[in-house]
Amino acid sequence: MQTNDQLLSAIENYLTRIDFPSDPKLLYAPIGYSLAEGGKRLRPMLVLLSCQLFSDNVQQALPAAAAVELFHNFTLLHDDIMDNAAVRRGKPSVYAKWGQNVAILSGDAMLIEAYQLLGESAPHLLPQILQTFNTMALEVCEGQQYDMDFEHKSKVSVVEYTHMIELKTSVLLAGSAVIGATIGGASKEDCRKIRRFATELGLAFQLQDDLLDSYGDQQLGKAIGGDILEGKQTYLMVTAMSRADENDREILRNTHRDSQLSNVEKITRIKTVYDRYDIPRLTEQQIGLRFDRALAALATISTDTARIEPLYEFARSLMGRKK
Amino acid sequence: MQTNDQLLSAIENYLTRIDFPSDPKLLYAPIGYSLAEGGKRLRPMLVLLSCQLFSDNVQQALPAAAAVELFHNFTLLHDDIMDNAAVRRGKPSVYAKWGQNVAILSGDAMLIEAYQLLGESAPHLLPQILQTFNTMALEVCEGQQYDMDFEHKSKVSVVEYTHMIELKTSVLLAGSAVIGATIGGASKEDCRKIRRFATELGLAFQLQDDLLDSYGDQQLGKAIGGDILEGKQTYLMVTAMSRADENDREILRNTHRDSQLSNVEKITRIKTVYDRYDIPRLTEQQIGLRFDRALAALATISTDTARIEPLYEFARSLMGRKK
Repeated sequence: MQTNDQLLSAIENYLTRIDFPSDPKLLYAPIGYSLAEGGKRLRPMLVLLSCQLFSDNVQQALPAAAAVELFHNFTLLHDDIMDNAAVRRGKPSVYAKWGQNVAILSGDAMLIEAYQLLGESAPHLLPQILQTFNTMALEVCEGQQYDMDFEHKSKVSVVEYTHMIELKTSVLLAGSAVIGATIGGASKEDCRKIRRFATELGLAFQLQDDLLDSYGDQQLGKAIGGDILEGKQTYLMVTAMSRADENDREILRNTHRDSQLSNVEKITRIKTVYDRYDIPRLTEQQIGLRFDRALAALATISTDTARIEPLYEFARSLMGRKK
Repeated sequence: MQTNDQLLSAIENYLTRIDFPSDPKLLYAPIGYSLAEGGKRLRPMLVLLSCQLFSDNVQQALPAAAAVELFHNFTLLHDDIMDNAAVRRGKPSVYAKWGQNVAILSGDAMLIEAYQLLGESAPHLLPQILQTFNTMALEVCEGQQYDMDFEHKSKVSVVEYTHMIELKTSVLLAGSAVIGATIGGASKEDCRKIRRFATELGLAFQLQDDLLDSYGDQQLGKAIGGDILEGKQTYLMVTAMSRADENDREILRNTHRDSQLSNVEKITRIKTVYDRYDIPRLTEQQIGLRFDRALAALATISTDTARIEPLYEFARSLMGRKK
């Protein structure tokens, strides 16, 4: 068995060694640029960790691990065009650096490269892996479309919002875990369990992300209140909208575009409403619930406890928890 | 064996019956819209015809045939954004009808759906089919990137241009043919031959397209001279540039942006230079050469002559030739 640090190194090494063509430059350079920007490699880590639940041969899962990382970066490339985002991981986005057309086309190439890596899987597993990957990939697109739809929707229910983030965030973690487990030789039942684990963990992670955007620790260097200022639908917003009276709903709906207010005033006004309806605590409760469900699903997988431990560690570290 | 008309009907039927989800609407509606717009279904026809060279069971090739048609339409969707094209097959492009973000994301979904169809191939052939498809798909992206690169390049050689159209047009026809032949059970040697056939046919087709844009029959309803007015690199332009003296090269380079001239004057001026260097005849010669090579490759495939005949018919009809 390998430690989580060893697995992360294996991924980084593998990604560095992928031999992308050098020409045409504008097609392939953005792929190397995106991958070199780093990130936490959560998805490929889940592929390897889930494979290691059932097998010591994690090497065999490296191409698929790289495939989900390429897929993830492909979605970021195209999302940045759609969201008009100039910065990604502290550096200019491909869209900002090379322009829209390069971002579209090199994103397409990145998606195809992901399938090329997937094609290196053991032939007898390929049909199943391809199907898991395709379903996952389509659902991620669905999540992005719902997310964009919500921008023009005045009322988004908690159920709709949860479904959207499940598609946009959980599905990719779940697909990665199932692909890794499949390569490791998991039973269908264990694939179902690891999917449940990753789905719930993804939801917990996304809800925590929503919470931290408004109530995070500014010392971590992240600006507070970005979602509020953009008027974004978040778990906090949709939960508050479902509980607030008409007067407060007006505030929730319109504060972000009130040109009379400073940014600090806007954030304070919205958070006052959130606090009035106990939204931070309700969100934390939901995060805890999802996290507990994730760990519970993990505990029932048919393998040695020692093999499960690294996934606990991964989950705790993802959520910034000690235990 | 089925006739070409029967094969075309089979494709149309199969495409109509693909069951895309209904939600989110903005993700899936453009896919149905693109496929319903028609087109000549050249690529799926090549899949089926190449399968039928070696097998009577063309049904088994229908998912892959649909996959290459979806892939082709995906490239059109994204190309239309990059080219800022408002019209496609006489109807508003997805980009014009729904906007850029929808065109990006539904294009992505279309590419993934293509892989989903490909995944329905017989498991023992899937690794090979996936590899052929991936290589093809990447090369098509490379072709589109070179095409965009050429817009900013003052000098494009005949070799560079031919390589670009081989990537942009031939590769997809060649990939379709090889996938069909693989499904039909072709030998490696015959796969090589059918690839040669489709590659040369694609080149002949693209060169003819270039020729007709400047010298076509206006009665066919296509405006003449579009490429000249856009200052596009075409086989005629790069060949003329390689043969003209400096004075004529100036005319070739700058006429399209000369605001003193009417469109008719621009077209006449460029065509006068083309005629001076015998470009139409040289292009026709090249088309004939490529077409002959295509048919020669076909003739050596190890199967009954009767099975090859429908591919001759397809090739002749593609080039608008009687024999």
